Amino acid sequence: MKPLGPIPAGFEAIDGVLVVAGRPVTHWVEEVGDTPLFLYSAERIRARIAQLRAAMPARLALHYAVKANPFGPVLSLMHGLVDGFDIASGGELRELLACGVAGGEISFAGPGKRDRELEAAIVHGVTLNLESEGEATRALALGQKLGLRPRLAVRVNPDFDLKGSGMKMGGGAKPFGIDAERVPALVRRLLDADADWRGFHIFAGSQALDASAIAETQGQTLDLAARLAQEVGKAPPHCNLGGGLGIPYFGPDTPVDLEAVGGALAQRFERLPEILQDTRFCMELGRYLVGEAGVYLTRVLDRKTSHGETFLVTDGGLHHQLAASGNFGTVVRRNYPVAIATRLGAPVEEEVSIVGCLCTPLDKLAEKAGFPRADVGDLVAVFCAGAYGASASPASFLGQGPALERLV
Amino acid sequence: MKPLGPIPAGFEAIDGVLVVAGRPVTHWVEEVGDTPLFLYSAERIRARIAQLRAAMPARLALHYAVKANPFGPVLSLMHGLVDGFDIASGGELRELLACGVAGGEISFAGPGKRDRELEAAIVHGVTLNLESEGEATRALALGQKLGLRPRLAVRVNPDFDLKGSGMKMGGGAKPFGIDAERVPALVRRLLDADADWRGFHIFAGSQALDASAIAETQGQTLDLAARLAQEVGKAPPHCNLGGGLGIPYFGPDTPVDLEAVGGALAQRFERLPEILQDTRFCMELGRYLVGEAGVYLTRVLDRKTSHGETFLVTDGGLHHQLAASGNFGTVVRRNYPVAIATRLGAPVEEEVSIVGCLCTPLDKLAEKAGFPRADVGDLVAVFCAGAYGASASPASFLGQGPALERLV
Repeated sequence: MKPLGPIPAGFEAIDGVLVVAGRPVTHWVEEVGDTPLFLYSAERIRARIAQLRAAMPARLALHYAVKANPFGPVLSLMHGLVDGFDIASGGELRELLACGVAGGEISFAGPGKRDRELEAAIVHGVTLNLESEGEATRALALGQKLGLRPRLAVRVNPDFDLKGSGMKMGGGAKPFGIDAERVPALVRRLLDADADWRGFHIFAGSQALDASAIAETQGQTLDLAARLAQEVGKAPPHCNLGGGLGIPYFGPDTPVDLEAVGGALAQRFERLPEILQDTRFCMELGRYLVGEAGVYLTRVLDRKTSHGETFLVTDGGLHHQLAASGNFGTVVRRNYPVAIATRLGAPVEEEVSIVGCLCTPLDKLAEKAGFPRADVGDLVAVFCAGAYGASASPASFLGQGPALERLV
Repeated sequence: MKPLGPIPAGFEAIDGVLVVAGRPVTHWVEEVGDTPLFLYSAERIRARIAQLRAAMPARLALHYAVKANPFGPVLSLMHGLVDGFDIASGGELRELLACGVAGGEISFAGPGKRDRELEAAIVHGVTLNLESEGEATRALALGQKLGLRPRLAVRVNPDFDLKGSGMKMGGGAKPFGIDAERVPALVRRLLDADADWRGFHIFAGSQALDASAIAETQGQTLDLAARLAQEVGKAPPHCNLGGGLGIPYFGPDTPVDLEAVGGALAQRFERLPEILQDTRFCMELGRYLVGEAGVYLTRVLDRKTSHGETFLVTDGGLHHQLAASGNFGTVVRRNYPVAIATRLGAPVEEEVSIVGCLCTPLDKLAEKAGFPRADVGDLVAVFCAGAYGASASPASFLGQGPALERLV
């Protein structure tokens, strides 16, 4: 049998049925009327943010990276919980504006911004995290054309990466940001052009679980910000320290030691160099805020055997769960945390593979793992489904269309 | 430098600009009004089907597998060119009905069909390729409920696979179809229930380039169909031999030798056993019909260097080209055929990586490959974009939305 990932702490069952937001998932499926269904727990999101606030230094602001989950009700919930938002496209800007978020609370990173996206950002007072000298030239020209003073930060490609991170965003040649040594000259150019220079965005990696690696990277990030500020000769109003906090998806993973990260950062904040004394620092978190708050529910349509192996075929699949299927950014496929939601806590009785409804061998939700015996009509839960699920999957593949989503 | 895949034969340039359907791609982009843009050439689709008709035995029918490209105008074009359609969902059925295709021309395979999908298929006279005994029970019950005689074929999980295929659909425990040894009993059950038994669907693999492997698999498929028919004691009205014909995506790939495949199949057809004499055979092809007819065009938004490497950042990316980015069904990332569409045929001047606009290191269209020098405003073409592109990619990722599509 292949191992399953660890179910996030705090999920319980009533009469063997997984509970989300105080109700069995069968209740939510009945209320919404169909499967597959993404359920996002507002209570879990709130608890996660409270946990972060308690562990992190008070001066650290928390931003939400919309890309992790752009579902409207999640954005509206976040509006009252975080100190700012980070976006990656004009589409995400429109979503936030529709939720009543002010442009001044938003920063916009992304290596390929179009002129119309830069323009919308400038008009709404969004901070642009500039990714290149060329983008700076375009943003300044558009500001002039619009008669507006653009709010510009510089995204720095750091000379270090986040050790053990699932996705490295620094430490070598990258399409993101501007190599550190060219940053001071660009900032001086922005200041000379009388742009509203907002500071630095330094993002070294994401999805790391090792607190000491995260703390080390945050220390390097602060050192780099101080060095660049000194070279510029001006204090950065703002510094985005990036994200990095991961969630456990696979067998041996354990959660980040948040107290260790917060304690190390508090120590660093106490001995900040003069030039960063008044800088406003933030972390930009997506997956860490919402990932474990989401559960994807899909119904078993068929139970079949082939050459002695048992398959449960569901009405969901990789068109909603590309990463869980092992087809997005992973080399070796490993099982996410998956359970029979209608038989939670029952003993393992058999080895089965749980597959989606798509006509492709790529469409696996759990491969050769141990489950209680399930049958047609049972619900399967894929955990850690709150981030990079619905919006990061090919919903139209094979004519299937998107899953339902609900914040509860 | 890393190699690029081979550009499909027949693409030419006018004044250095890639031509599709007789016009430079700059013309099409201007007419459609934006990038990224998928252009599908009707002429290339027609030519490919004519080539197949010429090479294959006359008695072989050609079906189009909608999943490869479900764009409405492509379906309408196919309606006049092929002998039938294969679908994988109720969504694809709706698309075909909207194009005026009759249910009798359609067959429906897929391991997880919902009751409402089975019902729609039965109502419209679509042939259901049954994937399990359980699905057969449901289809028969629904036929009874509707007072309609369902058209039912049996999808067979063959005991062999297609050697060298990119995606194996047979040869062991699979969620697709019914293990061969259980098929005769199921067919007898269908006949006893007075269903309209349509025959067999036997699909061993896809995306193979080796003609002798394809011919061998087709021979095994015919042998299996004959054996099953003899065990049933009744001739199958229809037999879907599957697909299997691939297209070259990567450096060393070469096109399928169609004459060799057609010649071998003609020989097999000449010595068919008595029980298959009147069977109507078809091949079900998707990628092979449309893949090389499509070009994905995306504009260079930025040209930047980082640690001595050059990046062209485009307004497209993996949200439209998941497979080309190396994130769908491939273990080792290799470059698709990619070119600077506005400098086609110009000599290689530099090594660059072409990336998409998404804020993730996964978003690569070409890695460290040789190109003529390109700059902001140039168009990049990704070839082999006619199949499993737009509909098989996470279009909503990072708030980007779908690409434009145009059949020309």
